[in-house]
Amino acid sequence: MRLTTVGVDADDTLWHHETVFRLTQDRLAELLSPYADPADLHAHLDEVEARNFRFYGYGVKAFTLSMIETALAFAGDSAAGVIREILAAGREMLTHPIETLPGVEATLRDLSERYRLVVITKGDLLDQERKIAASGLGELFSAVEIVSEKDEAAYARIFARHGTGPAEAAMIGNSLRSDVLPALRAGALAGWIPYPLTWSREVADRPVGDPRYAELASIVEAPAWLARCVEGLI
Amino acid sequence: MRLTTVGVDADDTLWHHETVFRLTQDRLAELLSPYADPADLHAHLDEVEARNFRFYGYGVKAFTLSMIETALAFAGDSAAGVIREILAAGREMLTHPIETLPGVEATLRDLSERYRLVVITKGDLLDQERKIAASGLGELFSAVEIVSEKDEAAYARIFARHGTGPAEAAMIGNSLRSDVLPALRAGALAGWIPYPLTWSREVADRPVGDPRYAELASIVEAPAWLARCVEGLI
Repeated sequence: MRLTTVGVDADDTLWHHETVFRLTQDRLAELLSPYADPADLHAHLDEVEARNFRFYGYGVKAFTLSMIETALAFAGDSAAGVIREILAAGREMLTHPIETLPGVEATLRDLSERYRLVVITKGDLLDQERKIAASGLGELFSAVEIVSEKDEAAYARIFARHGTGPAEAAMIGNSLRSDVLPALRAGALAGWIPYPLTWSREVADRPVGDPRYAELASIVEAPAWLARCVEGLI
Repeated sequence: MRLTTVGVDADDTLWHHETVFRLTQDRLAELLSPYADPADLHAHLDEVEARNFRFYGYGVKAFTLSMIETALAFAGDSAAGVIREILAAGREMLTHPIETLPGVEATLRDLSERYRLVVITKGDLLDQERKIAASGLGELFSAVEIVSEKDEAAYARIFARHGTGPAEAAMIGNSLRSDVLPALRAGALAGWIPYPLTWSREVADRPVGDPRYAELASIVEAPAWLARCVEGLI
């Protein structure tokens, strides 16, 4: 097969991300410990996030607003002090340093010499652009696509725009739900690189028996897998 | 000249938007009336928004977070009730009905038959997509570009991607700062359609003596202006 374009997810594929969310959630649990049991708190926050999703979409601002709503639910009229801390925690998330995962830079450099490399990510526009800039990886990408949802239509559109369509493209990322399944449905190759933590919203079952799908222990394995696909060995 | 692509701004160019922000600000002033004079409140909110801009960027979620911060500044430990109302007001902004401005649909239909028509807008991804869908205008656009900042580089990139570059493109919108000046700098035509209200951040001086710039009383005047540019009459 011919392969012209490789899409890569950003958060938890190129750099640590979910760890930062979890640390902020733990801080929220501590702030609300006089009012709520941590398990109840996490369950409630998940519910609030799910309910708000159709208004807020993905990203740190959405998460901050859902944390504030959760603080009001548990602390009621006493919530003001906690909300002040939540605003500060949200801003910290939007400025935290970017720590790339092992092997990312060398692997992306290799891929960028063979294929058109495109970041495909969800979240807040400005925050995702900041992280790409702070990662020092920006020059390796032909394009950055920040989308409100990673579905089949988004992959079809992006791979047509930056290459020769999904049949000659691959997607690599840590989320089965967002990176792997819709990219396969669009007709692309899809490589899954599990990350130790997965947000409840992103959990999904692995595809079975699809030769266009691969599990990779690390992004470092991506160039060899893609080369085998191109050579027709898979 | 040849003209291949026409970019149009969305908020306050295709539909009312700033009016919704102002109504929400007035509601905030009322909620905080026991604690703050309305003029002080607006001045403080402007300051908070300006300071938060590099973290939050544009959009309703950013505005909601800045309103919450302002409520904490004035109402202190008593702010919880007001913050609950602010969250509700933010969600209302994210679901309010879209009222297109007069002549928009017929004019866009006309333009879409002659040029590649692209929406170019800032704000929250999901919210801008919702508004375009709710406007019923979506089918008239070749593409939707939601960006974190409308600067010269953004226009150069977008007009290259959806046409033949900025020298053969035009931008139309209500903001001198975001729609007109950077589009002119990129080399495009730019038509300014003033809206009765302008957010303080978007205020700028008009360009002087640039034949690629025009002031239009309404979007209805755009097709004739662009036709005159194409015929070389301007």
